[in-house]
Amino acid sequence: MLDRQDIRKSAIVGHSPAPFRLRDDGPLAGLSFAVKDLIDIEGSPTACGNPDRLRDDGLAPSTAPAVLTLLGAGATCVGKTHTDEVACGMFGTNPHFGTPINPKAPDRVPGGSSSGSASAVAAGLCDFALGTDTGGSVRVPASFCGIFGIRTTHGRISTAGVMAMAPSFDTVGWLASSAEILLQVGETYFGPIPDRAAERLLIATDAFDVAAPKIVQALQPAVRALGRAEDIRLYAEGVDHWLDTFRPLQLHDLRSTLGQWASVPGRALSQGVSDRMKLAFSMPWQNVPPAALRREALTDRLVALLGDDGVIVIPTAHNIPPPREASLDDLVEFREKTLALTCVASLARLPQVSLPVASCEGCPVGLSLIGGPRADARLLGLARRLAKQLGIESAP
Amino acid sequence: MLDRQDIRKSAIVGHSPAPFRLRDDGPLAGLSFAVKDLIDIEGSPTACGNPDRLRDDGLAPSTAPAVLTLLGAGATCVGKTHTDEVACGMFGTNPHFGTPINPKAPDRVPGGSSSGSASAVAAGLCDFALGTDTGGSVRVPASFCGIFGIRTTHGRISTAGVMAMAPSFDTVGWLASSAEILLQVGETYFGPIPDRAAERLLIATDAFDVAAPKIVQALQPAVRALGRAEDIRLYAEGVDHWLDTFRPLQLHDLRSTLGQWASVPGRALSQGVSDRMKLAFSMPWQNVPPAALRREALTDRLVALLGDDGVIVIPTAHNIPPPREASLDDLVEFREKTLALTCVASLARLPQVSLPVASCEGCPVGLSLIGGPRADARLLGLARRLAKQLGIESAP
Repeated sequence: MLDRQDIRKSAIVGHSPAPFRLRDDGPLAGLSFAVKDLIDIEGSPTACGNPDRLRDDGLAPSTAPAVLTLLGAGATCVGKTHTDEVACGMFGTNPHFGTPINPKAPDRVPGGSSSGSASAVAAGLCDFALGTDTGGSVRVPASFCGIFGIRTTHGRISTAGVMAMAPSFDTVGWLASSAEILLQVGETYFGPIPDRAAERLLIATDAFDVAAPKIVQALQPAVRALGRAEDIRLYAEGVDHWLDTFRPLQLHDLRSTLGQWASVPGRALSQGVSDRMKLAFSMPWQNVPPAALRREALTDRLVALLGDDGVIVIPTAHNIPPPREASLDDLVEFREKTLALTCVASLARLPQVSLPVASCEGCPVGLSLIGGPRADARLLGLARRLAKQLGIESAP
Repeated sequence: MLDRQDIRKSAIVGHSPAPFRLRDDGPLAGLSFAVKDLIDIEGSPTACGNPDRLRDDGLAPSTAPAVLTLLGAGATCVGKTHTDEVACGMFGTNPHFGTPINPKAPDRVPGGSSSGSASAVAAGLCDFALGTDTGGSVRVPASFCGIFGIRTTHGRISTAGVMAMAPSFDTVGWLASSAEILLQVGETYFGPIPDRAAERLLIATDAFDVAAPKIVQALQPAVRALGRAEDIRLYAEGVDHWLDTFRPLQLHDLRSTLGQWASVPGRALSQGVSDRMKLAFSMPWQNVPPAALRREALTDRLVALLGDDGVIVIPTAHNIPPPREASLDDLVEFREKTLALTCVASLARLPQVSLPVASCEGCPVGLSLIGGPRADARLLGLARRLAKQLGIESAP
């Protein structure tokens, strides 16, 4: 039996500000939220999952615009949430501060890097939580913890006051316990979301080929419930082409943003992040320019494919969450496969919503919708309709 | 008579790396470029126009992806260029390191914040130069120094290794001595640019109303030469609505990115930047969320107006560059008016190209083209065709 206090301790950071709100009324009045500890709240530290940052970086001078919008809408901030170290991770493991509990699958990792945000929402500690998503950091924990989550169109929500990890991919997103709340939060950023819009659903059959057969089977009823849809091939260039485009760009961005800080002698750095940094510093610079050019071609193709009304349907992750005690090798292998799914929206700077539509071996399984540039609101409206249709208005 | 060495000293920073290239061949082989000293080159300091940064920040751990693309295409980097302090400025004035010379109007400011980049290109010290553009920092110096310049679609070129000033507006752009070189550089980032694309030219008559009558008159022949075009109103919501949306968002982003650093006691900070910081810290937080929401509505309207083929035509700046000895009050008044023109692409995250189409009282005057999201390549192609038609293939 899960103890609520244990989950809270695993998900909410010790240096959180006391719960507060700045307005009593507003469209989000009565709702509570948490904030990934990569995002600034004035007067609190932003540890980014690293003890040196907690010790050295002082108090944030300002509240990030992404948070101000929520406070301005009357929501109550209940605390800040744990993250993979400097947001580098897909699983939520953090050797410095511990791994948040996955309330829906306690033997399994919660997913990351917005791990504490997902854990807190899935346990009902708050109605929604802000996260960030570079290569899947909102989408994967949403899928693993069985809740709703959105990665927004790149650049649409200001990343001021958010630690930069890989700026050409970094986005702000959120996780929510219901499709309705996911949408309500979206309305505070984007304005009123219409009840219904024209949609052209595109099932990416080759993305389902990336997933484990049991995942495909688990998602089948939800995919059928979508109704009229067209089958498409997402990876016309091959899966490896997409991965080989994402990796050098993300690694080089990482080297530019955190390389100097990470190289300070004596820096407290987990093995995983230290290894990624070494990889970033050893990668030949020649890999970067052609990858940037490939990214443009991939984006152009996807934007044209989506047009004004297209929505691509893919599994959020390729498998159920790994066990908490999984080996580093197992995690690396898992990461590569799920990254093939998550890198698509990251590379093309597109919005993506994950819905907790199924379960498999007792674990939640997410289904994802990818929209064109600035289609965030349309995805949120579609997610609410699908959730109603599937009887999952609230996360199961 | 202008001394080339004086211009060089005023434009290129003393801590520049020695000229270098990483490849002898490539599409930009034989071309030289400079890099705004806000952008990292591995092994060199990035002073960002501030002496404390030069002293304290050490050497960049990595070369920014934006620079790698140019080096990978065979261009030769000849140095780094002066900037307004922490890129906060429209005029190129920098009390710490001096104000770069405007080679086309030596009694006038060069425009900023990519001031040294514009000065170096206009003086023929290099073929092109990287800059950054948040609220006009490539476009204004391009206009003032009589050269070509592009602000790219927000988020399209990685800002990793580029000092963050206002991340929801910050972009990488470049300045060039000819429309052909402006386009060639674009091809290294975006891929081959077709010779001709369908275009629907939209003359923003109310944007011309913002400019001084003598500027409108100077631009008239070039506007007529555009041929078939439709008149539109750009500021349907009123000019102040646009400015009141830009200001709080930019100020609050600035507070989030540089507020802590700027608040360190004893910080060397010019009066101008210090004043802006005070303004940022004194602004009520309540101004931010509604401005973010207004920005979304403005963007939606403009993106719809532009569609797949629209190009909006506006003056780049509202007047000729102010004299070097202009008072701070005069500069503030100037800034507000030109900002009404530059804030449009900044708010809507759109690409904009400035062409040196005219002169007025001996000073260069730029005409601007604004395209839809990711229309960078189309703008560069159109700029080349217009330049040919107007006989300004190279900056006059």
